[in-house]
Amino acid sequence: MLRFDPGDRRIRNTRHFDVYEGGGEYNVARNLAHSFRSRSAIITSIADNEIGRLVEDLVRQGGVDTTLIRWVKTDGISSSVRNGLYFWERGYGRRASAGCSDRANTAISQLRPDEIDWNDIFQTHGARWFHTGGIFAALSESTSDVAIEAVTAARRSGSIVSYDLNFRHSLWAHRGGRSAADALNRKLLPSVDVVFGTLDYDPLLDGFEPLKFSSAAAAMMDQFPGLKLVCTTLRTVHHGSLHDLSAAVFDGKDVHVGPTFNGVNVLDRVGSGDAFAAGVVYELLSGRDVGSAVRIGTAASLLAMTTPGDSLASTYEEVLQLANSDQLSSR
Amino acid sequence: MLRFDPGDRRIRNTRHFDVYEGGGEYNVARNLAHSFRSRSAIITSIADNEIGRLVEDLVRQGGVDTTLIRWVKTDGISSSVRNGLYFWERGYGRRASAGCSDRANTAISQLRPDEIDWNDIFQTHGARWFHTGGIFAALSESTSDVAIEAVTAARRSGSIVSYDLNFRHSLWAHRGGRSAADALNRKLLPSVDVVFGTLDYDPLLDGFEPLKFSSAAAAMMDQFPGLKLVCTTLRTVHHGSLHDLSAAVFDGKDVHVGPTFNGVNVLDRVGSGDAFAAGVVYELLSGRDVGSAVRIGTAASLLAMTTPGDSLASTYEEVLQLANSDQLSSR
Amino acid sequence: MLRFDPGDRRIRNTRHFDVYEGGGEYNVARNLAHSFRSRSAIITSIADNEIGRLVEDLVRQGGVDTTLIRWVKTDGISSSVRNGLYFWERGYGRRASAGCSDRANTAISQLRPDEIDWNDIFQTHGARWFHTGGIFAALSESTSDVAIEAVTAARRSGSIVSYDLNFRHSLWAHRGGRSAADALNRKLLPSVDVVFGTLDYDPLLDGFEPLKFSSAAAAMMDQFPGLKLVCTTLRTVHHGSLHDLSAAVFDGKDVHVGPTFNGVNVLDRVGSGDAFAAGVVYELLSGRDVGSAVRIGTAASLLAMTTPGDSLASTYEEVLQLANSDQLSSR
Amino acid sequence: MLRFDPGDRRIRNTRHFDVYEGGGEYNVARNLAHSFRSRSAIITSIADNEIGRLVEDLVRQGGVDTTLIRWVKTDGISSSVRNGLYFWERGYGRRASAGCSDRANTAISQLRPDEIDWNDIFQTHGARWFHTGGIFAALSESTSDVAIEAVTAARRSGSIVSYDLNFRHSLWAHRGGRSAADALNRKLLPSVDVVFGTLDYDPLLDGFEPLKFSSAAAAMMDQFPGLKLVCTTLRTVHHGSLHDLSAAVFDGKDVHVGPTFNGVNVLDRVGSGDAFAAGVVYELLSGRDVGSAVRIGTAASLLAMTTPGDSLASTYEEVLQLANSDQLSSR
Amino acid sequence: MLRFDPGDRRIRNTRHFDVYEGGGEYNVARNLAHSFRSRSAIITSIADNEIGRLVEDLVRQGGVDTTLIRWVKTDGISSSVRNGLYFWERGYGRRASAGCSDRANTAISQLRPDEIDWNDIFQTHGARWFHTGGIFAALSESTSDVAIEAVTAARRSGSIVSYDLNFRHSLWAHRGGRSAADALNRKLLPSVDVVFGTLDYDPLLDGFEPLKFSSAAAAMMDQFPGLKLVCTTLRTVHHGSLHDLSAAVFDGKDVHVGPTFNGVNVLDRVGSGDAFAAGVVYELLSGRDVGSAVRIGTAASLLAMTTPGDSLASTYEEVLQLANSDQLSSR
Amino acid sequence: MLRFDPGDRRIRNTRHFDVYEGGGEYNVARNLAHSFRSRSAIITSIADNEIGRLVEDLVRQGGVDTTLIRWVKTDGISSSVRNGLYFWERGYGRRASAGCSDRANTAISQLRPDEIDWNDIFQTHGARWFHTGGIFAALSESTSDVAIEAVTAARRSGSIVSYDLNFRHSLWAHRGGRSAADALNRKLLPSVDVVFGTLDYDPLLDGFEPLKFSSAAAAMMDQFPGLKLVCTTLRTVHHGSLHDLSAAVFDGKDVHVGPTFNGVNVLDRVGSGDAFAAGVVYELLSGRDVGSAVRIGTAASLLAMTTPGDSLASTYEEVLQLANSDQLSSR
Repeated sequence: MLRFDPGDRRIRNTRHFDVYEGGGEYNVARNLAHSFRSRSAIITSIADNEIGRLVEDLVRQGGVDTTLIRWVKTDGISSSVRNGLYFWERGYGRRASAGCSDRANTAISQLRPDEIDWNDIFQTHGARWFHTGGIFAALSESTSDVAIEAVTAARRSGSIVSYDLNFRHSLWAHRGGRSAADALNRKLLPSVDVVFGTLDYDPLLDGFEPLKFSSAAAAMMDQFPGLKLVCTTLRTVHHGSLHDLSAAVFDGKDVHVGPTFNGVNVLDRVGSGDAFAAGVVYELLSGRDVGSAVRIGTAASLLAMTTPGDSLASTYEEVLQLANSDQLSSR
Repeated sequence: MLRFDPGDRRIRNTRHFDVYEGGGEYNVARNLAHSFRSRSAIITSIADNEIGRLVEDLVRQGGVDTTLIRWVKTDGISSSVRNGLYFWERGYGRRASAGCSDRANTAISQLRPDEIDWNDIFQTHGARWFHTGGIFAALSESTSDVAIEAVTAARRSGSIVSYDLNFRHSLWAHRGGRSAADALNRKLLPSVDVVFGTLDYDPLLDGFEPLKFSSAAAAMMDQFPGLKLVCTTLRTVHHGSLHDLSAAVFDGKDVHVGPTFNGVNVLDRVGSGDAFAAGVVYELLSGRDVGSAVRIGTAASLLAMTTPGDSLASTYEEVLQLANSDQLSSR
Repeated sequence: MLRFDPGDRRIRNTRHFDVYEGGGEYNVARNLAHSFRSRSAIITSIADNEIGRLVEDLVRQGGVDTTLIRWVKTDGISSSVRNGLYFWERGYGRRASAGCSDRANTAISQLRPDEIDWNDIFQTHGARWFHTGGIFAALSESTSDVAIEAVTAARRSGSIVSYDLNFRHSLWAHRGGRSAADALNRKLLPSVDVVFGTLDYDPLLDGFEPLKFSSAAAAMMDQFPGLKLVCTTLRTVHHGSLHDLSAAVFDGKDVHVGPTFNGVNVLDRVGSGDAFAAGVVYELLSGRDVGSAVRIGTAASLLAMTTPGDSLASTYEEVLQLANSDQLSSR
Repeated sequence: MLRFDPGDRRIRNTRHFDVYEGGGEYNVARNLAHSFRSRSAIITSIADNEIGRLVEDLVRQGGVDTTLIRWVKTDGISSSVRNGLYFWERGYGRRASAGCSDRANTAISQLRPDEIDWNDIFQTHGARWFHTGGIFAALSESTSDVAIEAVTAARRSGSIVSYDLNFRHSLWAHRGGRSAADALNRKLLPSVDVVFGTLDYDPLLDGFEPLKFSSAAAAMMDQFPGLKLVCTTLRTVHHGSLHDLSAAVFDGKDVHVGPTFNGVNVLDRVGSGDAFAAGVVYELLSGRDVGSAVRIGTAASLLAMTTPGDSLASTYEEVLQLANSDQLSSR
Repeated sequence: MLRFDPGDRRIRNTRHFDVYEGGGEYNVARNLAHSFRSRSAIITSIADNEIGRLVEDLVRQGGVDTTLIRWVKTDGISSSVRNGLYFWERGYGRRASAGCSDRANTAISQLRPDEIDWNDIFQTHGARWFHTGGIFAALSESTSDVAIEAVTAARRSGSIVSYDLNFRHSLWAHRGGRSAADALNRKLLPSVDVVFGTLDYDPLLDGFEPLKFSSAAAAMMDQFPGLKLVCTTLRTVHHGSLHDLSAAVFDGKDVHVGPTFNGVNVLDRVGSGDAFAAGVVYELLSGRDVGSAVRIGTAASLLAMTTPGDSLASTYEEVLQLANSDQLSSR
Repeated sequence: MLRFDPGDRRIRNTRHFDVYEGGGEYNVARNLAHSFRSRSAIITSIADNEIGRLVEDLVRQGGVDTTLIRWVKTDGISSSVRNGLYFWERGYGRRASAGCSDRANTAISQLRPDEIDWNDIFQTHGARWFHTGGIFAALSESTSDVAIEAVTAARRSGSIVSYDLNFRHSLWAHRGGRSAADALNRKLLPSVDVVFGTLDYDPLLDGFEPLKFSSAAAAMMDQFPGLKLVCTTLRTVHHGSLHDLSAAVFDGKDVHVGPTFNGVNVLDRVGSGDAFAAGVVYELLSGRDVGSAVRIGTAASLLAMTTPGDSLASTYEEVLQLANSDQLSSR
């Protein structure tokens, strides 16, 4: 999606927007490519007009391979197929961040099963990791099917599969709400190795307790035996500009808790969870252990909130330095 | 519509946009309110989200009465109803201006007959002039009907009715093209007093010849006896930044030609025709003659191309001074 | 007034200013129109030059009715009559905000009694509330008289009258100082229903104690029996970017204290008191009680400090959500 | 003065201004210091507030000595003494440049005779050239007297004196108009060596003819025998963005005409005449002849129109290169 | 190189710069990748610090493959190896563009023979075209040798080799000047198929005459029998903002002249020759003829001057449309 | 040096830089001239190209006398001599500030003994205070010698000499590291009266204890009997945007500790130590005591961190007000 950011103004009275690219699944690929200097590609569908080409320009800057993008012909008024847009303002202190998205009839929401040859992609490109999430899967009936098709093919190819449970009320409002989303999740999770988020327990809403988290995560693993890791960020929102941040990963046996950063100054929260995911993915792909993954993920998640835009703008060295910082609880 | 302008960059590689409001029919109202300090109101439909509220903020700045806007409930992803957007870059010299619009499913395209009580509007508010055009009428089947409903009610109320024949290929591409547009125009023109544009002859494409213009205009009047004036701008485009500009109005008897401005530096062409219309409307509403109308319209049309955004940013005094300038043909 | 804001620079070394409109009394009208979507109009006098027209453009954007503005002819050098300007920088942490105003010979300071037909205004427009304050009243001898004329007419018309005691040392420096200001206040208060600020006790300087406040407010009501509410914001300034904020209203019987927001991040303090006033006015005009008024007023006051410019840029829904927030004292 | 420039916007609808310093007499000193790397100082009076300090910051950047500035105490509302401001927009093609100034009650307009010890300045600092002009002299009755006092002292000290006849209608509107200005000029010219502008003949309005110019200039020299040079720019304004430019100097015997630049692209015309003056002054101070002076002056005048702000932003080498360019009449 | 652009200001008094990437050889690769959507890679050496990483970010945005970049370790003060920078301002009308570069000790200038395995590159990647030029070759003694090594390997691999004779006085000032450059060119040309520029005749300085050009080009081909095409842009510079533009290619038999564009508005001239080269390369790579190549090259060259930055920001479709435009000689 | 600041972006993905001038020794002179309105001059060497002239423009704006700058001829590619540049981003909360400098082959690093006639400078200009530091002294072997030459001449002339021990690892990395820096310091300190920083004890790293500080400082004075004051800032860095700040000065007898500011919001830390030095120098030059010097120095140091750029942008009055503030420890 193309993101419109009014900077320190509000959307409703600005006269100027900065633009970024964004999207939950893309952000993970972008962070892997840009900050962690891994090769990553985005598989998506974009309407071929000036807006789509701007998105491409941003994606290229992000270092993400654009060759798997499907370009869909559109007309000059985007009547049958469009590109997704979202408008987001950052908030300031107790003034909350806010915005809206404009994602009806997007090219990606119109993607249908069989339009992408997943087997070819996984075999030809030899992808070691496939990541998708609950936003893409919720875009339409057909993207739900595409998601299932994709994770199945990925799993079959031997690629590790991660999935972000990300729930957007707005996407499910007319399609069955949370319970429909859960139903979809339950179709996807059998093919998933690493899940971001939890079912039946939300550490953000319910307060984090290691035991509750481990028992919820263990229950998920019982239900979906392919699951190897259940991951979540932990966050106390004092107000929009001030969070406490940590993260936890359950590996079937232990809960690994990341460093706890209290009193984190937040410039732009969007993409913080995706940076966590990217950090976890990168560490695991690099052969490091779960403790390392949660540490790097937490630090990446924090740093992603200190720059504008959805994505992490820090290097691995910077993430590592913060993850290993001694001053974690100061302030 | 909300207009996104990348300034002196291109849409496809910019990182920021200025925003303006625009739209053919609105621009006329805006110019009347802002430059000509007449009271004007916009009758339209806007989806009630942050984007819509930004449009409202811009319309208010334009001095146009916003109380007749219908606010349509939408959801957080604009799934069923949206606001229209357009992206336009200015061009530079021989690099042409370019862009695209994103106007599927807009609130205004969903407007249906009987949703607006036109009789009430014309009677209660006592509007002296009603202006609409071929863009609004072409948005959808239902807006075609609304346009007919509106001009009929306006004419019945005694309001003067003007109509801009404005043809956008993109709007008619899937709906019968130019001939379908013409068919619609022929349904609307019986209720029209002042028309901008011509049928069966295009001075811009075919080259302006007074006799051809007067005979084409006279033919229109024969067909639609209510028509009192046929108006058109005249333009030679040397390249995107350099035009020659004039205008002509046929009053059933004579062709009144405006001043000819050669070698006009163009910053942003969009809205130039709407400024011409506003100038003509204002002069006529002020009781001045057709010669004055075409002079003021031409000068307004020129000045609208010297500032960013769709609208005229000059005062009546400035328009008048240019219209009466002695140095029209210099350079 | 036209406000010049150097953003995160200092006035004395900037090369660029953003502009906003501002002014204590105007801000209340602006907040009512824009955030609270009430109809409001500004009665003022502006010199008719490019600067004045820019102010008009900003006021229109603010949604405030501009038809009661008196436009005063000026010459090209503003020799006899000018528009008021002020330059204000925001400060940062312990660097205080700072600035100066340039308000000699303004059109509004030259307003004299009998130039505005207040009776006509209140009768024709049926204003339900009239708000003015100690800045306007202090501009000149003649605006003192105009203020008295206005509140008298307003009260007589049945409109509710509110008055902000706002004292600007700079305005009274050569005209008798605080005691002269108090003398004027005492002439105005007999016609006032709702006063913002207190005589003989300043909760900001002296520390807020409910009993002290209620006895000072009760004393005011004894002296001016028409007074129905005495309102004040309560504020602890840790430094320019960090305040604690609350508010209190005495209704003749009880002190209603608003929510207490500790550790408020302040972007731009100017206009915070005016947002409080607008919140109070709106709630009372909407028929809600004093407790609701002080809650909404406090939240509006906070939010006005989170955006640049004098005015509140939040919606009623956003104000309400903050006012009812459970996390008021967290940090 | 502090100059507010809305860039490519109009004053009346901009939301931000760039700031520059400007003023006819100052610009000459600035160009001498900055482009021609001569030492120069400004003798003026500035109100000591944030606005004045910003002017000082700009003057320092200009390389002009600020030690002779008189700082006048003001209050926080600029009630008795202010700093001069002006708002100017550049125009675009046939949209003319426009603006207004705000110069009532400025510190400089309140300067009175005997407040500056001119003899001390000319003796202590050994100034070789003193330049003033018709804008400063016209600010008030007292600056007229100060101008006379200054040129008399300068001439007495042996300094060369130049004077720019610059007439601003707005400054004389209430004080006798052109004839009063002429009367003042006739008091000043007896102490002047080099005059910019002509009496009784205006090459810009009347069309340049060498004979007319030389006879008008000769007549001035007859009347004011101290005059050694009469200098003027020559300009054909096709429209605001396109001028033809040249200049002429009469030395009592011959008319020296500068190079003729046709089809000059104009970004910001303001200060073009002052750059001409600076070029002439510099060449003469450097011991070069009148032919060289008019060539350098013309080229400087052109270059000053190619950058924003009042002043020339080119080096002597660049001016020289243009002055000696072979392609003067091409286009 | 990292390019610093002060926009419409001058370098010497700006307070901010936009940044772009640039460099003669890179620009060709960038235009091929971005506008012509071919795959291209840059082979260069960059010092690994924040500046180098910004260059990488820009190159990625340009769509050019970055995997062949050699990253050279540097210290925190760039003491032994740096990245090249250049500062360039655009000029305006008769104010010429100007700037300077800062390219001592750059990583690329330190590249030595044998550091890059050219054979591997051409064999592994199967490059169909290799382009280099006289700027890279002139950076140092060792880059001269690297250039020879590269073109030899490229030619040997069967890749087409093109070379831009580009001469920068500043690079040869201390190393033998034009004659030393020519000597180097004569070492390189035996391996070159397509040359941009001419020896012993300069159409820009000497005036274009087809016969002179063809005989100079034929003489080059006699001397370097491998040469298949001699290409040059043709340009009349009225002033910095207004050029006439065309191009010519000699194919050993005929001179193919591109369309002639008179009165071209120039925003930023830098990179215009590189866009010509890219257009020629693309057409030939696409199997089209020399006539098509010179047409596309000319149009690309023009369009590159209408946007800021070194590179072409237009699509192939836009280039084609201009190349085929009927209005080439208007104005 | 010219400083490039990406604002709230990161260097590695910005498209735009603001520029400032900076440099440890210069900053002190700048603060003295600009904030404390003392006369100060910079003695340095700058390569004479567009970049150097931009530095001059910034230095002039800073109010620092530029007449002692030595302009060194360079070529168009800065091959033999350059100007120093540095790129610095501010950080945000726990994201640390970062950057790199580009200072090889700078004109100033090439300065050699005997190129500046120090005796003439101190005698002719009667400088009362000479300040230099460990950055300049470390630039090269020859600047080490120049520093010794300068402090010796300064001391001999009766000027007070201050020296900042400032150690930059990057400058000494290839030249002996900390121990070589210390060796140089020990050659310079015999001519120094006031030293900023301590040998053999670092309050920032080791934690401030008055006794440790006084014994380290006393040991320095034993070793260098000319030393009269040992000065240091004291700082606890919670994270990049939040410091606690104080300062201490040992006068041979007592430790004078400045006010302690806890919870200081930091916008841009660079130059904070230089502002402390400037405050100390100014107070002592003004004849005030050491207690006053440390108070003013501490407050200046804090304020310098609240604006972008290296330098203090506050007036003496503002510094004084903060120094005397009662709310020092609140938060």
